[in-house]
Amino acid sequence: MWRYLKRLVIGKPLKTLDEGGQSLSRFKALALLSSDALSSVAYGTEQITTVLLAVAASGAAMWFQIPVAALVLVLLAAITLSYRMIIHAYPGGGGAYKVASTNWGQHTGLVAGGSLLVDYMLTVAVSVTAGTQAITSAIPALRGHVVPIAVIIVVLIMCLNLRGIRESAAFLTVPVYFFVVMIAIMIIVGLYNILTGHVEFQAPLAVGQSFGGMSVILFLRAFSSGSSSLTGVEAISNAVPNFKEPKPRNAAATLSIMALILAFFFAGITFLSYWYGIRPNHDVTVLAQIGIQTFGHGAFFYLLQLATAMILAVAANTGFSAFPMLAYNLAKDKFMPHMYMDKGDRLGYSNGIVSLAIGAIVLIAIFDGQTDKLIPLYAVGVFVPFTLSQSGMVKHWYRERGSYWIGKSMINALGAFISGALVIILFALRFDNVWPYLIIMPALIYMFLKIKGHYQKVARQLRLVSQEPIVRREYAGSTVIVLVSNVTRVTAGAIDYARSIGDYVVAMHVSFDTDPNKEHRTAKEFKSEFPDVRYVDIHSSYRSIAAPTLRFVDVIAKNSKERNYSTTIIIPQFTPKKGWQNILHNQTSLRLRTVLNTRDDLTISTYYYHLKE
Amino acid sequence: MWRYLKRLVIGKPLKTLDEGGQSLSRFKALALLSSDALSSVAYGTEQITTVLLAVAASGAAMWFQIPVAALVLVLLAAITLSYRMIIHAYPGGGGAYKVASTNWGQHTGLVAGGSLLVDYMLTVAVSVTAGTQAITSAIPALRGHVVPIAVIIVVLIMCLNLRGIRESAAFLTVPVYFFVVMIAIMIIVGLYNILTGHVEFQAPLAVGQSFGGMSVILFLRAFSSGSSSLTGVEAISNAVPNFKEPKPRNAAATLSIMALILAFFFAGITFLSYWYGIRPNHDVTVLAQIGIQTFGHGAFFYLLQLATAMILAVAANTGFSAFPMLAYNLAKDKFMPHMYMDKGDRLGYSNGIVSLAIGAIVLIAIFDGQTDKLIPLYAVGVFVPFTLSQSGMVKHWYRERGSYWIGKSMINALGAFISGALVIILFALRFDNVWPYLIIMPALIYMFLKIKGHYQKVARQLRLVSQEPIVRREYAGSTVIVLVSNVTRVTAGAIDYARSIGDYVVAMHVSFDTDPNKEHRTAKEFKSEFPDVRYVDIHSSYRSIAAPTLRFVDVIAKNSKERNYSTTIIIPQFTPKKGWQNILHNQTSLRLRTVLNTRDDLTISTYYYHLKE
Repeated sequence: MWRYLKRLVIGKPLKTLDEGGQSLSRFKALALLSSDALSSVAYGTEQITTVLLAVAASGAAMWFQIPVAALVLVLLAAITLSYRMIIHAYPGGGGAYKVASTNWGQHTGLVAGGSLLVDYMLTVAVSVTAGTQAITSAIPALRGHVVPIAVIIVVLIMCLNLRGIRESAAFLTVPVYFFVVMIAIMIIVGLYNILTGHVEFQAPLAVGQSFGGMSVILFLRAFSSGSSSLTGVEAISNAVPNFKEPKPRNAAATLSIMALILAFFFAGITFLSYWYGIRPNHDVTVLAQIGIQTFGHGAFFYLLQLATAMILAVAANTGFSAFPMLAYNLAKDKFMPHMYMDKGDRLGYSNGIVSLAIGAIVLIAIFDGQTDKLIPLYAVGVFVPFTLSQSGMVKHWYRERGSYWIGKSMINALGAFISGALVIILFALRFDNVWPYLIIMPALIYMFLKIKGHYQKVARQLRLVSQEPIVRREYAGSTVIVLVSNVTRVTAGAIDYARSIGDYVVAMHVSFDTDPNKEHRTAKEFKSEFPDVRYVDIHSSYRSIAAPTLRFVDVIAKNSKERNYSTTIIIPQFTPKKGWQNILHNQTSLRLRTVLNTRDDLTISTYYYHLKE
Repeated sequence: MWRYLKRLVIGKPLKTLDEGGQSLSRFKALALLSSDALSSVAYGTEQITTVLLAVAASGAAMWFQIPVAALVLVLLAAITLSYRMIIHAYPGGGGAYKVASTNWGQHTGLVAGGSLLVDYMLTVAVSVTAGTQAITSAIPALRGHVVPIAVIIVVLIMCLNLRGIRESAAFLTVPVYFFVVMIAIMIIVGLYNILTGHVEFQAPLAVGQSFGGMSVILFLRAFSSGSSSLTGVEAISNAVPNFKEPKPRNAAATLSIMALILAFFFAGITFLSYWYGIRPNHDVTVLAQIGIQTFGHGAFFYLLQLATAMILAVAANTGFSAFPMLAYNLAKDKFMPHMYMDKGDRLGYSNGIVSLAIGAIVLIAIFDGQTDKLIPLYAVGVFVPFTLSQSGMVKHWYRERGSYWIGKSMINALGAFISGALVIILFALRFDNVWPYLIIMPALIYMFLKIKGHYQKVARQLRLVSQEPIVRREYAGSTVIVLVSNVTRVTAGAIDYARSIGDYVVAMHVSFDTDPNKEHRTAKEFKSEFPDVRYVDIHSSYRSIAAPTLRFVDVIAKNSKERNYSTTIIIPQFTPKKGWQNILHNQTSLRLRTVLNTRDDLTISTYYYHLKE
């Protein structure tokens, strides 16, 4: 049953060699790697205005969004330049975990890696909730159901990924270019209307006018929220090996194109938001409000919402390709359980995919599907690795000291400085939202190191060649204990088998029935059927069969060891024809196994007798 | 961890022989066996008035409760007499399952048994929700939390029973007699006040006055709800063997005493309810309203509520002793899974106890903790077995035809007739509440028969002596296959062990790494360490290790069979020092086992290597 269901949802297994190489053109790469970054404009401007409105409910602070947006664009420029450096320096793929580990050492790399693990969960959570809000902005009937809709979307994307959606899947480019076209049209139409005077200036205050409560703090708060528009910029630098030759040049060019589009979109949307005097509200997103102002409540508006929801789904999907890869790399370095290295039937890293989905759903549930509550934590998770990798690059340039190394270091230092400043701002001004980071990260690092320690210990103990010489055993024979609960065909089969492998066979029966006649009958039956096998009856005063079995087995094992015999314990078990029928039979065998496997030098065998009907 | 927790909650295991006999005096038996019946008065009258008020919101139909109560008392008399017959006829304990099976055959017995299984769940659900309402009537702050409180109470009673509360536990008598005393005081004080003229007649209409909408249907609806006061009357007849000698006489006398108390309570409460003009409402139970009217809002009222809640908890507890016993009897007859025959560490039938608690919690959740929604289903569950056992008794007397058999049959026939009529009334008038019975019962009966069929098939296949002669095998030797994933101390230990039991040992390795060098290295390492063991490398194009393993094992097993060798497959496995560390290692062994155990004539061994650190 389960198997058929799985096959239906996940599809049939793929051969290992089906995993082919791929090389991305700039056009395709732009679509595949920039969905996360470009889709950020769906919530970036909204985050700024939400902060501004929260402080000055009159909307008097709204003109602040213009200078805040300008600073975000400066940050974008710095980060883009920095990442161009990384692309050329690490053509093998320069994820923050790799760059930070290489330049700052393993522990710092783990901080970057841990941040990113959490961050990918947040990518999924933020993208999906923002996408859900794009849907509910267009379809009012769905408002109030953000959490269940978001959870369903996460599960759907998870299933798609378990089926093995390719990062290179051509159909993923459609939503991205659809979104690019829609936003471009919206900005151009909006600006045209403004220039031709069709839309009057609706902002409460012109830029530069003063209002009560204006302050540097407010500016920084708005800036820290607006920086969420820059999440996902690093994706291209991680994927350099997937580009067409010359890989670094193509990757760097794609990054620049993406940054230009992102800058245009972010600037355009923020300007329109300011000009239209748009105020964020709980029901309709800022982007949707701009859409309504620009297009009216017609087909174009619905297309815009569809495009937004779709690119956000694709953005969430990037989390599903990045997280399992990072988990794989961490597992390969033995910081995470090996199971993250197991590929599923469809060649995806199923455990990583499922873990990510669970993490994202938990985040959505905790933050009640509210994008603006998730954003500060998301920003910390993004800018900590940014800071670590950019500052790592400074070290890298200094170590290499190639041509123009001072200029290159300056660029990376600037990126590191702004990113680092942002992290400090976030902790100073948004502590109520980002404090979980201070709990999650130490816990993750502790877990990483604990797991690594365990794997190292295990490897040391298993190695054939080590300081402790291996003791090979040449047994003189074998003792076999057969557990007997009653005398049936199963017992007969097990005894016959035991004789084929054992030099000394003993049958053991645990009785706790208060009816001694039954016990005598079992003993008699056994002796008449197997006259030449030793039969030991052990009486238990308790209902437990495990303790007396263990006691007896210990005695036999000790004798066996003295004779240099190996010891095997056989648990005869019949298997019903259908799986569900197992619940109709006592699961003593499983319970015994968990007790017996605590013993050294004891091998546990299960003799299976298969029922035919 | 789990073990310590279990020990803490459940207590330490008890010896089997601690299970002692017990013999109940009338005084003790009355308390222990009548809590279910006596506690019914806490909700019986309320059920009648609720029906009456639902039809005529003006309360004009309220005087109906007097004739309805009179008919309930007639039914009580008939049932009491019938059960006195059963006590004498089945001194070994006359549960409905037993009486119906004996007289009507197995299938009818199963209907009775299935009804009772559901019924005991309803006993727990109804008693606990009614008890919770007694609490919330006294403590308004808890209103609106009936479901969680009820669930907590069920879990508490479950834990007590897993610890092994004795049916004979002396402390259980306290709440029962406490309740008896409190209700008796209330009725006497109430009647005294009425007779001395302290309380005026507050009923909207005197008995016999006509009102719009009065009808036979209404009368029958009210009667069917009021019959819930009679649930639990059968308990004494099931427990005859536990009485002091002369068992049947003492049991019959106890039953009569209980019936008299019940009649007095039910009549008194209903009369007070009528006289006071009490109307059921969602917040305060009818019994609590009577208590307030009688005692005022003082200490006596709170004592009454406490007594009510306590006896209802004891009544729920009777479900916890009856259900596991019935499940045990059904399991002994092979209609339910064997696991219901397993006694827990504390000698209680843990599986039955836990199943009952889960069932009750599900019922409470489905019916949202509303006693009046549960009552009709409860009544059907009670009166179907009543009908079957009473009519079975008629057959019994006819078959025996002893002295006065006609008179005895008449009494049982009357009981059967009234019970049967009640069932028909319930189905006709309360179908919206009792329809689940028509789904649950066929499903249960189907399950019972299916399970029985399975056990019979299994027994036939396992029996040593049967039509198909047993084939004993004298193997000429043994083939042992060792699964090797890499060459470590675990492999070395497993190979040494394999040699001690095998005449022919072969090592098998499945490779799916795309890196052929690694495979060569494994092969080389193996051959240098174990030069005299055959090593087979199998390449898999899929990620699955199970399918190629199975293919290879099949070939070896076939060869082995031709040589008359037994075949063993050894899965070497290291066990980490701490249990949680298992999640850090691949669970391939478990997966392999589930595939391999589908094969005949193949024994699966696990060689355990225990890590020391």
